[in-house]
Amino acid sequence: MSTSFEPSPTESALAPLPTPGLLLDQQRMDRNIARLKQHLRPLGVGLRPHLKTSKSIDIAQRLMATPTGPATVSTLKEAEEFAAAGVKDILYAVGIAPAKLNRAVALRNRGVDLSIVVDNLDQAKAVAAKCRELGVKLPTLIEIDSDGHRAGIQPGDPLLVEIARTLQEGGADPRGIMTHAGGSYDARSEAQLVAAAEQERAAAVQCAEQLRAAGFASPVVSVGSTPTAHFARDLTGVTEVRAGVFVFFDLVMAGIGVCSIDDIAISVLASVIGHQPSKHQILVDAGWMAMSRDRGTANQPVDQYYGLVCDPSGRPYPDLIMRQANQEHGVLEIRPGSSAPLPDLPVGSLVRILPNHACATAAQHTYYNVLSEGRVVAKWPRIASGW
Amino acid sequence: MSTSFEPSPTESALAPLPTPGLLLDQQRMDRNIARLKQHLRPLGVGLRPHLKTSKSIDIAQRLMATPTGPATVSTLKEAEEFAAAGVKDILYAVGIAPAKLNRAVALRNRGVDLSIVVDNLDQAKAVAAKCRELGVKLPTLIEIDSDGHRAGIQPGDPLLVEIARTLQEGGADPRGIMTHAGGSYDARSEAQLVAAAEQERAAAVQCAEQLRAAGFASPVVSVGSTPTAHFARDLTGVTEVRAGVFVFFDLVMAGIGVCSIDDIAISVLASVIGHQPSKHQILVDAGWMAMSRDRGTANQPVDQYYGLVCDPSGRPYPDLIMRQANQEHGVLEIRPGSSAPLPDLPVGSLVRILPNHACATAAQHTYYNVLSEGRVVAKWPRIASGW
Repeated sequence: MSTSFEPSPTESALAPLPTPGLLLDQQRMDRNIARLKQHLRPLGVGLRPHLKTSKSIDIAQRLMATPTGPATVSTLKEAEEFAAAGVKDILYAVGIAPAKLNRAVALRNRGVDLSIVVDNLDQAKAVAAKCRELGVKLPTLIEIDSDGHRAGIQPGDPLLVEIARTLQEGGADPRGIMTHAGGSYDARSEAQLVAAAEQERAAAVQCAEQLRAAGFASPVVSVGSTPTAHFARDLTGVTEVRAGVFVFFDLVMAGIGVCSIDDIAISVLASVIGHQPSKHQILVDAGWMAMSRDRGTANQPVDQYYGLVCDPSGRPYPDLIMRQANQEHGVLEIRPGSSAPLPDLPVGSLVRILPNHACATAAQHTYYNVLSEGRVVAKWPRIASGW
Repeated sequence: MSTSFEPSPTESALAPLPTPGLLLDQQRMDRNIARLKQHLRPLGVGLRPHLKTSKSIDIAQRLMATPTGPATVSTLKEAEEFAAAGVKDILYAVGIAPAKLNRAVALRNRGVDLSIVVDNLDQAKAVAAKCRELGVKLPTLIEIDSDGHRAGIQPGDPLLVEIARTLQEGGADPRGIMTHAGGSYDARSEAQLVAAAEQERAAAVQCAEQLRAAGFASPVVSVGSTPTAHFARDLTGVTEVRAGVFVFFDLVMAGIGVCSIDDIAISVLASVIGHQPSKHQILVDAGWMAMSRDRGTANQPVDQYYGLVCDPSGRPYPDLIMRQANQEHGVLEIRPGSSAPLPDLPVGSLVRILPNHACATAAQHTYYNVLSEGRVVAKWPRIASGW
């Protein structure tokens, strides 16, 4: 929500970089990280940052409270890569497939406090069987569905206690509750965001109480999504908050009202390669391979198509968007209905394109070109992709 | 259009593979390659396969007429990677940004016959200046816009000759014409596909004649898109055909009528991780990170959402599609309006999901699990991603 006053990188500072390429504005990222940590501090709850957005060891170290965690990941590959870099406290936050249990145990045997997630009895039985088979004690959170968004059991369902009991009887460690308020992405006002956060908290706490009433200590009550993390007013009963995309923010988050355009810390650098004057189009060398195919703003009040186009210093051109994306071509146009002029961008001009969805756009790249105080200061690799 | 009779991989053959993972059915791929080569042979025109779809040296060797080419690429990174693997005749088929010319020259200096593409005078001047500066002769095709789809100058525009003259005066080698009938993706009948192919051919040949009338030999007339390559009835005047996605095919190509579902050679293997019985949903561990965000069938008569779901042998379940995709979660449902039953797929079951767009889905992975005669026989890496 703040305005950006940092010095702007000049076209000459960016000119040596290959295009398309991923840029990261370090001051904006640092500001985004500080904002969420400051928001959570008076609420008395720590952050377990989701590393799936950045997938970078350099960035993880800025996100985590300590060099060893806590952290959240979306794949066991991420868990393995971050563990190899010294992270010791990791939640794998996607309901586990039984065939992945051996890899999870292998990580724990390397000294990583990895916890896993289940939301049904079949998974719980598989976890219990694996614990029995290998004589290990897998810490397991039970996912609940706080808003009908995706995975998780319904609050109040007696299945919750049955899952915890199944886990415990097999020798697993039912550590508590986790939920993700993915439905908060549909919020369109501050009041709705605040309500989504409270709904998430209340559902998670209610389920933890249900477990405790049945004799399970449930020390962990883990909630989170970037919108609810920023708009929670009270986190009583919650023990940790997870969030990922806040580190960079993006056009979807700006469209929801969680950040402003000026907070978006990543962009894709592209070169103008041609024009179609009769169609008022500018062609650039960044297509969906560089931006991703994400169209997350398509159903928001302002559709940003494949991204909002900025000058090399990061200032948006009025209503200039990437209207079409092919694999390595992007077509820039003025947003339909706008009377803004098409800027004069000769062949070879550089532009920066803000992404709809930071997780998806960053995933198309292997490293970050880090900008600080208007200069390119570092190249931070992303961890190996894949599963 | 043929029916598949190859032996089916069993669930037990696939069980050792990590999920999500990319599967490649070698028999289907070989059949797709043979089909296009057989179609082009009587038309007297060779194939310059586009390697951007597979980005694999193993697959390139099956696509190309000889171990050294010819080949088409969409980035200089691809050109560099395939050149390092011995490919010598490469067309970089995206209009070049002036800042990339040094890399293009460096490849030529390593003995690669790399040709580049321009479609405007600014690019031609930049190419000419680089040729003068370095004393090199860059082979350059001029892109024309045969169907209003994207890049290229309009057929009949006198600019064509001016670009050729600018190139030649600087010491570059204006080798001829290239075009890409991307508009053929909107075709909805065989007659429209045949017409799109003829429109592409006629425009390219007309422009080559325009160049020849002005004194430029224009030995290359390069056309192509997967739909037009398969439906061309006559290629008089054309010297080469480019196509990429045909090697795998996908749901978009099936929707256009270029192939059948049984021809699609890649799929994403996923594990069932849960259910939402009240919403008739099955959750799997493949989301958009494994499938891509491509929704290329959204505007086709049959919307396949994020992909069509098959059993482990590759047979589609009736109307079972991936309705929603998050980063590492996919939500399977029966297609809206269908009365097909939701299959009984317990936690841990394996499914294979056919992609909307093979180029986009394959790009989310780092290797292919190659299936042949129902067994996993190889792991073929994709070249390094990035630019």
